[in-house]
Amino acid sequence: MHIDILTLFPEMFSGVFQSSILNKAREKGKYSYNLVDFREYSDSKHAKVDDYPYGGGAGMVLQPQPIFDAIEAVVNVKATKPRIILMCPQGEPYSQQKAEELAKEEHLVFICGHYEGYDERIREHLVTDEISIGDYVLTGGELGAMVVVDSVVRLLPDVLGNDQSAPMDSFSTGLLEHPHYTRPADFRGMKVPEVLLSGDHAKIEAWRRKQSLKRTYERRKDLLENFSLTTEEQQILDDIKKQ
Amino acid sequence: MHIDILTLFPEMFSGVFQSSILNKAREKGKYSYNLVDFREYSDSKHAKVDDYPYGGGAGMVLQPQPIFDAIEAVVNVKATKPRIILMCPQGEPYSQQKAEELAKEEHLVFICGHYEGYDERIREHLVTDEISIGDYVLTGGELGAMVVVDSVVRLLPDVLGNDQSAPMDSFSTGLLEHPHYTRPADFRGMKVPEVLLSGDHAKIEAWRRKQSLKRTYERRKDLLENFSLTTEEQQILDDIKKQ
Repeated sequence: MHIDILTLFPEMFSGVFQSSILNKAREKGKYSYNLVDFREYSDSKHAKVDDYPYGGGAGMVLQPQPIFDAIEAVVNVKATKPRIILMCPQGEPYSQQKAEELAKEEHLVFICGHYEGYDERIREHLVTDEISIGDYVLTGGELGAMVVVDSVVRLLPDVLGNDQSAPMDSFSTGLLEHPHYTRPADFRGMKVPEVLLSGDHAKIEAWRRKQSLKRTYERRKDLLENFSLTTEEQQILDDIKKQ
Repeated sequence: MHIDILTLFPEMFSGVFQSSILNKAREKGKYSYNLVDFREYSDSKHAKVDDYPYGGGAGMVLQPQPIFDAIEAVVNVKATKPRIILMCPQGEPYSQQKAEELAKEEHLVFICGHYEGYDERIREHLVTDEISIGDYVLTGGELGAMVVVDSVVRLLPDVLGNDQSAPMDSFSTGLLEHPHYTRPADFRGMKVPEVLLSGDHAKIEAWRRKQSLKRTYERRKDLLENFSLTTEEQQILDDIKKQ
């Protein structure tokens, strides 16, 4: 997979891309990336990339010219037919399903604005996807692009070892995870539940399933709506609701 | 505001914290931050911070000792009563409302795991908030912490100039933003809608309101459920639905 990122702040990416999994995956040749400062493609005298909005109003709007030209200069769009992704609050809410979809692509291009709005013609005539990582306001699209890249690259084949994959993968099962405990069994008087020390695997499995359902019910009822429960799980959930 | 971040990958934060608004806000004294590698607080011989889960299963779990001790060493919990925030997929879905709430605090502490689960005793006896930035799986909590810090710091008084605030603030109005356009009026034959060039402010305002409702209806019907429409807006929305 190759990833191009258009940004006015390429220096923001170094710490994240040169650490941990993203660094290892790149070293192993699982993906490559290229940071493109689209200010370099501005055809205006002072390398301007934004201007006031037509029709008035506060704030600045990113002009189409530098972004169209940067994409055409850097990305051989015809050869690889990349997904061109605009990071923006109006985009499709990002999900694990979308991460899995993007992980199948060969070429991703991200466009990151910073404070500004985007000229609508970028949306209409250039991008293939608009993504929002959540309903909160960020200074720019850069952190969103890093989030998407991290979530996608970890899904590429042979990127994660077994030790790194399982416990945080709540959203692949559809329910929130059950509680985890590790050594010591007694930490300052706070103890691990006895069932986990019992060695009775059936009991442990039942406890974990119940805790997972309970946590999901208490914290994220919305996830249960899209989850098809077995008869047994429905029974456990009914018991939880009664308590 | 002071921010402490507990992480095994402090080097991940440099690019984001030393650029743009986060850097300027720190230089202006609007907030300070401190990165704490909690591995340094492990009392085990080999600076171990995680271990296998009790009850079996894949993956590793972060032990309570290094995290409890790091917080006690670094954070004068009694003096400032900080919010201690665990970044995790099981947390409360992050929102602009939560960002506004956190922006009122004097002291935030973030705990970032990496691949691993957290020992439940950290959740139960140490943290005040659990936050998830979205329903997707990331390699660790670091990007989530950066997202929360960025969204909070930009809300602190005198951090943003006027030019930087308005256009991306979709979630403060409750609807998605209308389209923006800027120069040139004709870019490679793609034209700005005539109404925006008309100079008729009432017409422009009406066009924008309609576009904002239309975009929200087409992309994020869920946002309309929590939005109280005026009679006029309801009328516009009914017209949009008919089309």
